[in-house]
Amino acid sequence: MHRTPVLTCSALDDLAGRKLFFKCENLQKVGAFKMRGALNAVMCLDDADAARGVVTHSSGNFAQALALSARLRGIPANIVMPSNAPAVKQAAVRGYGGIITLCEPTLQARTDTAARLVRQTGGTLLHPYDHLDVIAGQGTVGLELMDQVAGGLDAVIAPVGGGGLIGGIAVAVKGMGQGTRVFAGEPAGADDAARSKAAGRLIPQTGPDTVADGLLTSLGEHTWPLVRDLVDRIFVVDDRRIVASMRLVWERMKLLIEPSSAVPVAALLSEELQDLAGLERVGVVLSGGNVDLERLPWA
Amino acid sequence: MHRTPVLTCSALDDLAGRKLFFKCENLQKVGAFKMRGALNAVMCLDDADAARGVVTHSSGNFAQALALSARLRGIPANIVMPSNAPAVKQAAVRGYGGIITLCEPTLQARTDTAARLVRQTGGTLLHPYDHLDVIAGQGTVGLELMDQVAGGLDAVIAPVGGGGLIGGIAVAVKGMGQGTRVFAGEPAGADDAARSKAAGRLIPQTGPDTVADGLLTSLGEHTWPLVRDLVDRIFVVDDRRIVASMRLVWERMKLLIEPSSAVPVAALLSEELQDLAGLERVGVVLSGGNVDLERLPWA
Repeated sequence: MHRTPVLTCSALDDLAGRKLFFKCENLQKVGAFKMRGALNAVMCLDDADAARGVVTHSSGNFAQALALSARLRGIPANIVMPSNAPAVKQAAVRGYGGIITLCEPTLQARTDTAARLVRQTGGTLLHPYDHLDVIAGQGTVGLELMDQVAGGLDAVIAPVGGGGLIGGIAVAVKGMGQGTRVFAGEPAGADDAARSKAAGRLIPQTGPDTVADGLLTSLGEHTWPLVRDLVDRIFVVDDRRIVASMRLVWERMKLLIEPSSAVPVAALLSEELQDLAGLERVGVVLSGGNVDLERLPWA
Repeated sequence: MHRTPVLTCSALDDLAGRKLFFKCENLQKVGAFKMRGALNAVMCLDDADAARGVVTHSSGNFAQALALSARLRGIPANIVMPSNAPAVKQAAVRGYGGIITLCEPTLQARTDTAARLVRQTGGTLLHPYDHLDVIAGQGTVGLELMDQVAGGLDAVIAPVGGGGLIGGIAVAVKGMGQGTRVFAGEPAGADDAARSKAAGRLIPQTGPDTVADGLLTSLGEHTWPLVRDLVDRIFVVDDRRIVASMRLVWERMKLLIEPSSAVPVAALLSEELQDLAGLERVGVVLSGGNVDLERLPWA
């Protein structure tokens, strides 16, 4: 694992009207925070379970993270991917030693195929985010960030998709008892967390439509209570602002971030958040940097 | 100034066959190491000279760096830029408080205009690289890098253009007496440093032609002796490899670097350097990240 750096940028401070501290998980191994949760879950397995390997279904960053984590422990990783997953993503999983099983590109086919692999191998099924060891691993982003910023933070903001990252961070940051608030940024085209929080009950996401392709998923049974009880507020931003904020970070910070990572930045630059008082120092989680350079959202 | 992070990347280690430590000056203020030399030169002025301000001619990163450095000291910066300098670069200099004087896009017009401004203002002319205080400032890249890598380095490699960066680094690193070798990477289309070193005399660059637009300039009277005496070897790479290495760093390290910064990376991946023994741990200077996102070299 990398202890990723925390960077600052006076240009973005000026735009946000606060002092910002960017936790650069785009610079993490496999290019995203997902490595933390995957590695923690793999390392938490007892030796007998570990020997039978791990199984997951994912076409995204978690697939690569689990493949690499399993290789680091020397155990097999069976990754179920939809048959239409980009060749480059399949190659990346194979590059980390993952064993790919392709299936029809439906959720039913994915879960059925993963269940079959679990029966066949006796391996442990690891959910990409709705799993306590995964959530705990993602929480180390919050622990490190708080440790790296001398002088403390008034708030931390991270994107919310399935809730593994923000849930883990919320547990970690609130547990430190320094009064630091925890905010989430969410795309308007997949705002199930904001709607769930407003309604006080879990409302699954259907038909998500946003450029932030890492945030399409619904909250789960483990992550929802964390978002409900420990996240102070969720800020919803539209795709136009997400893309503009992504480009701003590329141009001013020289960091490649994916659209999902730009969501909290867009929230910080919105009128809604700029009106909040008592937020002089804010930690911002840049969650990942896996973008297709051939298909940039401003091209 | 930022104390820029030193990052590692196992994928690039595997490709180079060594352990690499990347000093990320693309994450420096104004997006390049130029800030170090400009700020040092401005801070070295005595109060009487400083009050009359500074003058330079530059269309690149040094113009922005000098404007910001002058603002930090509270003195005027007169920047001569060619009339065809991109509007975005002019805007950046103005954004840092620089006073722009446009001139015909010839070297003669630039130097004449700068000389006139010096006469009019009594300000101090600061050369973008061939100035001892500028060179000393750039050398802090080497000091920091050596300090940040526990366990030492067998070599450090940086790009060479005018020689301010590599010259300063060479003085710093060699002065530490740890036996660390100093290498330079240079584009084939502007290889005056390699040719000068081979000939044992300064051969100015004429008609440079390379994608590495930060490395078009010739060595100067102050930088040439440093390159001649303190740089152990210069590796020349062609534009195809420079562009491929730039893209590799974007994709694998999630860092925006400009083509000039990719030159030492390309050198490390060349057969010539890969054959060298005794280089287990190498520091690599990523010098800057100022690229036009509308005109990427692989598009």
